[in-house]
Amino acid sequence: MRLDRLRIPVVQAPLAGGASTPALTAAVLNAGGFGFLAAGYKTPEAVAADIATLRSLTEAPYGLNIFVPDDDVDSSTFAPYLSEIGGEADRQGVALGVPRYDDDSFTAKVELAVSERVPVVSFTFGCPETADIGRLHEAGSEVWVTVTDPNEAQAAVAAGADVLVAQGIEAGGHRGCFVDREDREDYGLLVLLQLLTAHVSVPLVASGGIGTGAAVAAVLAAGACAAQIGTAFLRCPEAGTSAPHREALSGQGRTRLTRAFTGRSARGIENRFLLEHSTAPVAYPQIHHATGPLRAAARVAEDPDVVNLWAGQAYPLADERPAADLVGALAHDLATALASASGRAGGAAPG
Amino acid sequence: MRLDRLRIPVVQAPLAGGASTPALTAAVLNAGGFGFLAAGYKTPEAVAADIATLRSLTEAPYGLNIFVPDDDVDSSTFAPYLSEIGGEADRQGVALGVPRYDDDSFTAKVELAVSERVPVVSFTFGCPETADIGRLHEAGSEVWVTVTDPNEAQAAVAAGADVLVAQGIEAGGHRGCFVDREDREDYGLLVLLQLLTAHVSVPLVASGGIGTGAAVAAVLAAGACAAQIGTAFLRCPEAGTSAPHREALSGQGRTRLTRAFTGRSARGIENRFLLEHSTAPVAYPQIHHATGPLRAAARVAEDPDVVNLWAGQAYPLADERPAADLVGALAHDLATALASASGRAGGAAPG
Repeated sequence: MRLDRLRIPVVQAPLAGGASTPALTAAVLNAGGFGFLAAGYKTPEAVAADIATLRSLTEAPYGLNIFVPDDDVDSSTFAPYLSEIGGEADRQGVALGVPRYDDDSFTAKVELAVSERVPVVSFTFGCPETADIGRLHEAGSEVWVTVTDPNEAQAAVAAGADVLVAQGIEAGGHRGCFVDREDREDYGLLVLLQLLTAHVSVPLVASGGIGTGAAVAAVLAAGACAAQIGTAFLRCPEAGTSAPHREALSGQGRTRLTRAFTGRSARGIENRFLLEHSTAPVAYPQIHHATGPLRAAARVAEDPDVVNLWAGQAYPLADERPAADLVGALAHDLATALASASGRAGGAAPG
Repeated sequence: MRLDRLRIPVVQAPLAGGASTPALTAAVLNAGGFGFLAAGYKTPEAVAADIATLRSLTEAPYGLNIFVPDDDVDSSTFAPYLSEIGGEADRQGVALGVPRYDDDSFTAKVELAVSERVPVVSFTFGCPETADIGRLHEAGSEVWVTVTDPNEAQAAVAAGADVLVAQGIEAGGHRGCFVDREDREDYGLLVLLQLLTAHVSVPLVASGGIGTGAAVAAVLAAGACAAQIGTAFLRCPEAGTSAPHREALSGQGRTRLTRAFTGRSARGIENRFLLEHSTAPVAYPQIHHATGPLRAAARVAEDPDVVNLWAGQAYPLADERPAADLVGALAHDLATALASASGRAGGAAPG
């Protein structure tokens, strides 16, 4: 288990969409944590290039995150929403993107992971089939699956997952749920860890709203083997975070779950687009592709009102500092927090 | 500070509405934890009687929880909702209650706390005025205020609160927010603890979805001095939990936030009434009084579909067992969890 050999129980989240870079991942790995490259949204060729770059920066074992495709939906599901946001495209002087369905080259990316013998392959938005997990195992890869409730956890373990990434509702960016639906319970991270430790026995990596060493200590106390952290890395100089996104992360806005940008539930800092388009349907990746040109134009124009400003609920605690400094500070504060907690446990400690 | 003298850093939540009893509070106090009587919904005379009963059962310092009144709202706010639920009253063979505004005898209850020199007085639904806190301090009482975000925390500290009860979105029963509104951020507990430790320096008691000793350990690691636990005590024989509520707590239903029963956001297990009346407005305590006869009739008839089945997200982990056993198990598991976390922190620990 890779987690057993980690010097610092901190995992840099994949941060698909431009924020993660081989430089960021290498910095975390070389500082003693664990880090992921994001395959999501990229071509297999671009992912292969990222892997090559990472390998030139570090010899440490690393991870690659792959999206599991959603089921397709009928265009009638999202046609009214595309009409609603047509004016947004006009305002940016671009056309909406084609609302196409695709599988994000799932099969080719799994093949790439097998051929590259990627040490850890994690999956988000679903659970791969047992056969895919088996092929990765044969290639020497460890398989992690992101889950958000006990049912998903049991399904992932049944399919052969080695480790579960338990994602709480506090997390920034997309919810990792297998199916994005209204009639499901959105668990806070601490509850999710309690429920999963009662239901499954594989190692857990906690994610969602972890921004301090004290919170890393908390999830270890709750039974996790490590903390996966995304938002806290977004302001690092090594990250590919856009200028308007960095600006919003240094501000005071509230966060909220939204499907406005991509057709899948995700947490971002409130801006005009998010607030004005709160009725977006479940249609991923169709809405992701439709809004892509809008968001790209807004990033170039540094217009924060039309950019997806993904952030977890703890984002106000994130500082601008190099990734290695952040990992070191988390490790230091984690140790302090555990020692302090043992003191406060007082008479409860046996002996 | 009472928290410094606790043998076990577990606080039994007030559980207003019938679930808390002097017997439950005494059992927790005598087991080495801390416990609250609930003043909410009761007459000052009934609260005085509860205090007398508790004092006959234990000499330990105890707490009393008092509701801070909401602002009144115009009847036009809730009239359409009362029309909507009129059929529910017919179905139970009762009339809706009078949707009256009241302040839950706030002043008289503070007077009672002063005259009884209650060791700890906690407040929910708002922050008392500085003058009230001052009078309690003069009487020797420690004042705790329930908060759900950093703004409320800063207001409570400014008013003179000695301790903050930090309530996460995972919690069962009513949200403790000062004002119940849509445009606020609902923080998960672990994020809330991180934000509050960064903003204020008074001791924090963590609440919301804490059902295991590992979760108690987690909130101590995150900086809290103790864990306030409600739902896990609901199945204790000493609790006054109704039969349909106990039955639901042993089941598998999802929880959800709702205003359907009381006009204030609260988390309960989904049932027919909750799901069919999802558009209830903010109007507390008017809707609480209006639905009171309905809920009372349903409790007598053991009809779980019309009872407010308050429960936190970790409720499936609650067992039926005496309160002292639960407190002892939490203390034991807390110590184990902290020791285990220190092991997993591995190389991160200095020295």
